[in-house]
Amino acid sequence: MAILLSTKSATMAAWRDALLEVDPSLEVRLFPEAGDPAEIEAAVCWTAHDMAELRRYPNLRLIVSMGAGVDHLMRPPGPPPGIPVARLVDTRLTQGMTEWVLLNVLRFHRQDAEYRAQQAARIWHELPAPDTAARRIGILGLGELGGDAARRLLALGFPVMGWSRRPKDLPGVEGFHGAAGLEAMLARSDILVCLLPLTPDTRGLLDARRLGLLPRGAFLLNAARGGHVVQPDLLAALDAGHLAGAALDVFEPEPLPADHPFWAHPKVVLTPHAASITIPRSAAPQVVENIHRAREGRPLINRVDFGAGY
Amino acid sequence: MAILLSTKSATMAAWRDALLEVDPSLEVRLFPEAGDPAEIEAAVCWTAHDMAELRRYPNLRLIVSMGAGVDHLMRPPGPPPGIPVARLVDTRLTQGMTEWVLLNVLRFHRQDAEYRAQQAARIWHELPAPDTAARRIGILGLGELGGDAARRLLALGFPVMGWSRRPKDLPGVEGFHGAAGLEAMLARSDILVCLLPLTPDTRGLLDARRLGLLPRGAFLLNAARGGHVVQPDLLAALDAGHLAGAALDVFEPEPLPADHPFWAHPKVVLTPHAASITIPRSAAPQVVENIHRAREGRPLINRVDFGAGY
Repeated sequence: MAILLSTKSATMAAWRDALLEVDPSLEVRLFPEAGDPAEIEAAVCWTAHDMAELRRYPNLRLIVSMGAGVDHLMRPPGPPPGIPVARLVDTRLTQGMTEWVLLNVLRFHRQDAEYRAQQAARIWHELPAPDTAARRIGILGLGELGGDAARRLLALGFPVMGWSRRPKDLPGVEGFHGAAGLEAMLARSDILVCLLPLTPDTRGLLDARRLGLLPRGAFLLNAARGGHVVQPDLLAALDAGHLAGAALDVFEPEPLPADHPFWAHPKVVLTPHAASITIPRSAAPQVVENIHRAREGRPLINRVDFGAGY
Repeated sequence: MAILLSTKSATMAAWRDALLEVDPSLEVRLFPEAGDPAEIEAAVCWTAHDMAELRRYPNLRLIVSMGAGVDHLMRPPGPPPGIPVARLVDTRLTQGMTEWVLLNVLRFHRQDAEYRAQQAARIWHELPAPDTAARRIGILGLGELGGDAARRLLALGFPVMGWSRRPKDLPGVEGFHGAAGLEAMLARSDILVCLLPLTPDTRGLLDARRLGLLPRGAFLLNAARGGHVVQPDLLAALDAGHLAGAALDVFEPEPLPADHPFWAHPKVVLTPHAASITIPRSAAPQVVENIHRAREGRPLINRVDFGAGY
């Protein structure tokens, strides 16, 4: 039996090597060279892989989606019925995301745009000291990513709030849930960080009305999915001066079209879906673990719950 | 008896109010309105205050310097002989400095300059993922500021080294000291963070030869004093491509002259000695504590050691 690997060509070899380093007995085939379809027991696929294509493999018993988000799997046609899907939950992935969040929270908190503009104008002028204890941070989503960001920001002295689908208790984090909880948290978030999964419930969550609930001068960070934000509404909130800045790693569509106003917007800091990048050697062990579990009929780790949508 | 307060006019009232909030019985006089010189028991002074002026007060028994660094006190004429001097060691001051260090370490680590340039050029391109576990950080100075930065950077997963005058043991931090230790640490520092006190031993520490010991492509952060760095040598190292970037908060002289090449240098991120700003309400309690201690003849907290130079 063999493993079908399908990812961006630039990282294909690194993934194959990383999987073989964990289990040299694996036979790894690089898509589209699948060989005999009946021999494929597991597919390890990047998010762009066509789910219809996976119906070609009659003995498939595991799909590993090479990322933390799984919203792409929810769209028709979806994975072949009955085949379990695992996603990656990787400390390195979490670490990368937390770095992106900290960099952009500190960028806004420390008035970096103002200081860059002063440098460009050769102005030596000390701005009022930012008050960490008074900069309230609201985090949308308290899963692996949101929970880690919350802990790090708390440790730096920021007051941290978090909103999740179900009530969650993280030490030191003021928790909110449900529709009423969302509005209450937004109204108090000087910096709002979106790390939610994209589901039918969360698509378009940050629209004009909800962005309008943020305090005037608030900042938005989105490293979840472009679909969480109604992009024209965000642009309007920035242009109206209601929001002071946005750090965006995700868009709809991606790549962001070259003529989109975000590119040249003075209040937008943009990265090309690069907040957190899976590193093969770091993620390979859990992939191999799930291949072994699927063979032995044991429960998968990090299995996608299609009911919850993540 | 009275307290003489001398600081920047913009913060004079906030300091007076903060001191009175801690001890309403204090009589606080705002320089230059000192009143009867014989009534001044303590002087709470910003670094620009003339030390010769303090010889006017025959009953002075305490000087509080309103900052963490005390190098300005070491220059002639120095404080009046026999009068103890305390500096500020303030958690808020430390917190601000650590934020500045984290922002700039993450800025360089996460290829922010490249991503800003790509945004300006409307280029959607994911750069190779930075490897936190392989980005070695060397910290010069392991006192209050360096120690806190070291702990935070360690918690984020960076390998952290530290150099101090005397051997110091911080959990998880690889320690170096002495001249040989300095060279060994520099040779392995992908990001070098200077948080040293400025003393005759550390003035001009980062010259062409020592900057040349850093790995090619290294980054420098300096939030200590401008005098630690030989500025023309740093410019040459940046221009030669040996260093990839520098974040500088301190200069010699300050303000940085408007025609200095740092202002417009594409590899320099500059802040106007604003990395860490003393907040009166946060620092006032230790000042009042020292006033009480001086009255009662008890040992001061945060007393400056003129032998060590900090």
